[in-house]
Amino acid sequence: MSMKVAVVGAGGRMGGEAVKAVNAAADMELVAQLRRDDPLESILDAGATHVVDLSVPDATERNVRFAVAHGLHAVVGTTGWSAEKLESLRELLATTPGVGVLIAPNFALGSVLASAFAAKASRYFESVEIVELHHPDKVDAPSGTAARTAELIGAAREEAGVPASPDATQSDPLGARGAVVDGVHVHSVRLRGLVAHQEVLLGGPGEQLTLRHDSYDRASFMPGVLLGLREVSTRPGLTHGLDGYLDLGL
Amino acid sequence: MSMKVAVVGAGGRMGGEAVKAVNAAADMELVAQLRRDDPLESILDAGATHVVDLSVPDATERNVRFAVAHGLHAVVGTTGWSAEKLESLRELLATTPGVGVLIAPNFALGSVLASAFAAKASRYFESVEIVELHHPDKVDAPSGTAARTAELIGAAREEAGVPASPDATQSDPLGARGAVVDGVHVHSVRLRGLVAHQEVLLGGPGEQLTLRHDSYDRASFMPGVLLGLREVSTRPGLTHGLDGYLDLGL
Amino acid sequence: MSMKVAVVGAGGRMGGEAVKAVNAAADMELVAQLRRDDPLESILDAGATHVVDLSVPDATERNVRFAVAHGLHAVVGTTGWSAEKLESLRELLATTPGVGVLIAPNFALGSVLASAFAAKASRYFESVEIVELHHPDKVDAPSGTAARTAELIGAAREEAGVPASPDATQSDPLGARGAVVDGVHVHSVRLRGLVAHQEVLLGGPGEQLTLRHDSYDRASFMPGVLLGLREVSTRPGLTHGLDGYLDLGL
Amino acid sequence: MSMKVAVVGAGGRMGGEAVKAVNAAADMELVAQLRRDDPLESILDAGATHVVDLSVPDATERNVRFAVAHGLHAVVGTTGWSAEKLESLRELLATTPGVGVLIAPNFALGSVLASAFAAKASRYFESVEIVELHHPDKVDAPSGTAARTAELIGAAREEAGVPASPDATQSDPLGARGAVVDGVHVHSVRLRGLVAHQEVLLGGPGEQLTLRHDSYDRASFMPGVLLGLREVSTRPGLTHGLDGYLDLGL
Repeated sequence: MSMKVAVVGAGGRMGGEAVKAVNAAADMELVAQLRRDDPLESILDAGATHVVDLSVPDATERNVRFAVAHGLHAVVGTTGWSAEKLESLRELLATTPGVGVLIAPNFALGSVLASAFAAKASRYFESVEIVELHHPDKVDAPSGTAARTAELIGAAREEAGVPASPDATQSDPLGARGAVVDGVHVHSVRLRGLVAHQEVLLGGPGEQLTLRHDSYDRASFMPGVLLGLREVSTRPGLTHGLDGYLDLGL
Repeated sequence: MSMKVAVVGAGGRMGGEAVKAVNAAADMELVAQLRRDDPLESILDAGATHVVDLSVPDATERNVRFAVAHGLHAVVGTTGWSAEKLESLRELLATTPGVGVLIAPNFALGSVLASAFAAKASRYFESVEIVELHHPDKVDAPSGTAARTAELIGAAREEAGVPASPDATQSDPLGARGAVVDGVHVHSVRLRGLVAHQEVLLGGPGEQLTLRHDSYDRASFMPGVLLGLREVSTRPGLTHGLDGYLDLGL
Repeated sequence: MSMKVAVVGAGGRMGGEAVKAVNAAADMELVAQLRRDDPLESILDAGATHVVDLSVPDATERNVRFAVAHGLHAVVGTTGWSAEKLESLRELLATTPGVGVLIAPNFALGSVLASAFAAKASRYFESVEIVELHHPDKVDAPSGTAARTAELIGAAREEAGVPASPDATQSDPLGARGAVVDGVHVHSVRLRGLVAHQEVLLGGPGEQLTLRHDSYDRASFMPGVLLGLREVSTRPGLTHGLDGYLDLGL
Repeated sequence: MSMKVAVVGAGGRMGGEAVKAVNAAADMELVAQLRRDDPLESILDAGATHVVDLSVPDATERNVRFAVAHGLHAVVGTTGWSAEKLESLRELLATTPGVGVLIAPNFALGSVLASAFAAKASRYFESVEIVELHHPDKVDAPSGTAARTAELIGAAREEAGVPASPDATQSDPLGARGAVVDGVHVHSVRLRGLVAHQEVLLGGPGEQLTLRHDSYDRASFMPGVLLGLREVSTRPGLTHGLDGYLDLGL
């Protein structure tokens, strides 16, 4: 019997991709597509057991709480979940045993894996730096993903007692060495034609390890969303971050 | 108090690197360097507690059994350990509690990590292929490391029930699609100027993950040898493969 | 005064991109869009001075001859131009002085530049190999672009008297060394998520030069089409290949 | 009959490589090796017709003028040639017709080709940035090669009337966007295990062109030195930069 899925935020670009992905999945049935201002009750009328929320920051909390209150599992890609909102959701989930929610800022499996691998590997190498590359219409640098990867690496190296990456630079009048986030140099390239790309470069005596992720389009998030849908009912309570669902023990 | 290390096979190229690395390590003391035909007893005379064996295939078993019989820990990079020799060593170790031996075909941390990451990631992607690149004096293709990586990937995907990588190729008269090892396409590039390099390419809808390892010289094995020396006394019995010593739980 | 452009084959995917690109160009005016079976006379009625032909192989010759016969310049991306058809077009152009036609199998500037650079550089390196990477729905290997690049490299090296790339391979039971085209090894990778990518790897003692081209979507052809439109009236007669329009003298 | 070569500065690391390279070249004979304070007259005594100068900045001018004054051709890799010294050498060469001198700051063929290709290609792309990667003992950033490449690109784009690379960055508090040299963003990575590497990234709608050069060791300069020796007698007067000897017309 296939899983009955409602997509909330189906009018947005990510939501539209999710509609296509659920429709294409043999083990799922798309029973409802909600756009802005559609009543949440239609999720119940359609008989959904799972909700994918890809709406907007000011609606996502209400959508997810509605789902949980009615015993539905939820997979959430919308941003805007503050620590307070997460804590409040955890309290609600404590009253609804068996219901699972996955909230993830990033559903690209390759990106999540690359960050986890980078943190793990970084304790075994003298040097580590990050180069992130995006289209030139991006307004901020470095990217949020690069900053988070640097934080994970910085924490892993501190825990393992690894000293700072060696750097003999004495003269850098123009700032070519880039940003430093938690002790990790981060470089931001902006280039027409690119989408979203990141390289973590790790170096030791006589060797280099490079972990590169290329994201070409929004479709890259859908395998992670489908994986979340297939697993969420077996993981009651709140999971924050897709890495919690990946079997990364090696 | 520093660890007292004897290097066996100190006259070879890898052994010479190990002599340099142990000398440079603040927490180790090099107490003996043995070359071909030097008596093994000099290891005991020098008061060594740890032995690094980087000798030759027809001497390594005798060297390691000598060390174990005298209660010394051993880190071994020499090839030639058949399943029978390993089993016989395990039996000897059962009679010497507290003694540890690490035998590893590859001490390059980056290479070991890259293979482990590749196997782990491969169950989350539709497609996976390997490109290995070496200097043009290499006589065999594909490289042993690439073949082993393909086996690890093949096993991981089979266990996870991942279908074969998609491939619509109908016409390939010249063999451009390369070798297939355990269901994984492997491509061997030979180029003057290169040393030893490997890329594992993983692809899914709209995204790509690339794991690349570059080995520039023999020095790349030494951080792994030193890590082995520092850990071997805490891991009694036989460990085969450096990955057993790496904290890869993620 | 802006150039008046007619797009023939506007109903196809490439034609649709051309319509968008011409509309977006400040120095051009799109005066006609022809789909299959639209009468060619509408080009004249609209007052076009330039024609972009992105139709189908069995229509392109008729379309281009019509344009030339009426004194219009043409930029042509449709395939199917045999040596005989090209020769016949040259004869027609000899009777219409001042009219220019550009027929190019590949309008991606980066791809054309990469191939030209590769051929030029290949005479200065001992070793050269090609890796091409495409989506897994491609039915032939190696790609046409890779085969043409190998031919250009083979010819350049033969002319310069460069010996074959060194290769000590003695054992390659599974064909990991890939295809050989005009003395150049070519490797074909197929991976979900990719579009069309090519690397030319050149190696000499202690150094490597890599020329990589990534084609992410059809839009990559449009700068080349616009460049062709802007130049075609200054280059009377037939030009075959976009490289003829690029200033590659260094 | 083989060319008779004297190496001046044979005691240095580059000079030592040149001694090996000349000895290995079938068409050359090494007739003299001069170290610091060896008398220059020994070049004449040995019957040399060509001099390779890889000495030190404060000796190179005297060495080269001595060679030219005695009718010998010279290939020079030593730094320290100011505009005044070059002009003075040009005047001397005007009095010794038929004598050729090549002074090049960089003899790595791949690096010289990559810079030339980058400048040429940069006029056809919207965006261009440079990433250079070196070992962590380097004291300055960006590298001299990267700065020169940026200057060549900046000049080529200005001449062709190409606007600045698009960049919507509004927020970059930590300087992740790196240095800007002649309008080109330059990023400097420092990593243990690396030697000297550079990537020029060019981007346009839907496509990317990447030109990467890897320099693994000093041997990479020798093919350029040998090329210089073989050509210098046919190019009388002063040539500055190895690109003057490469056939880069495409």
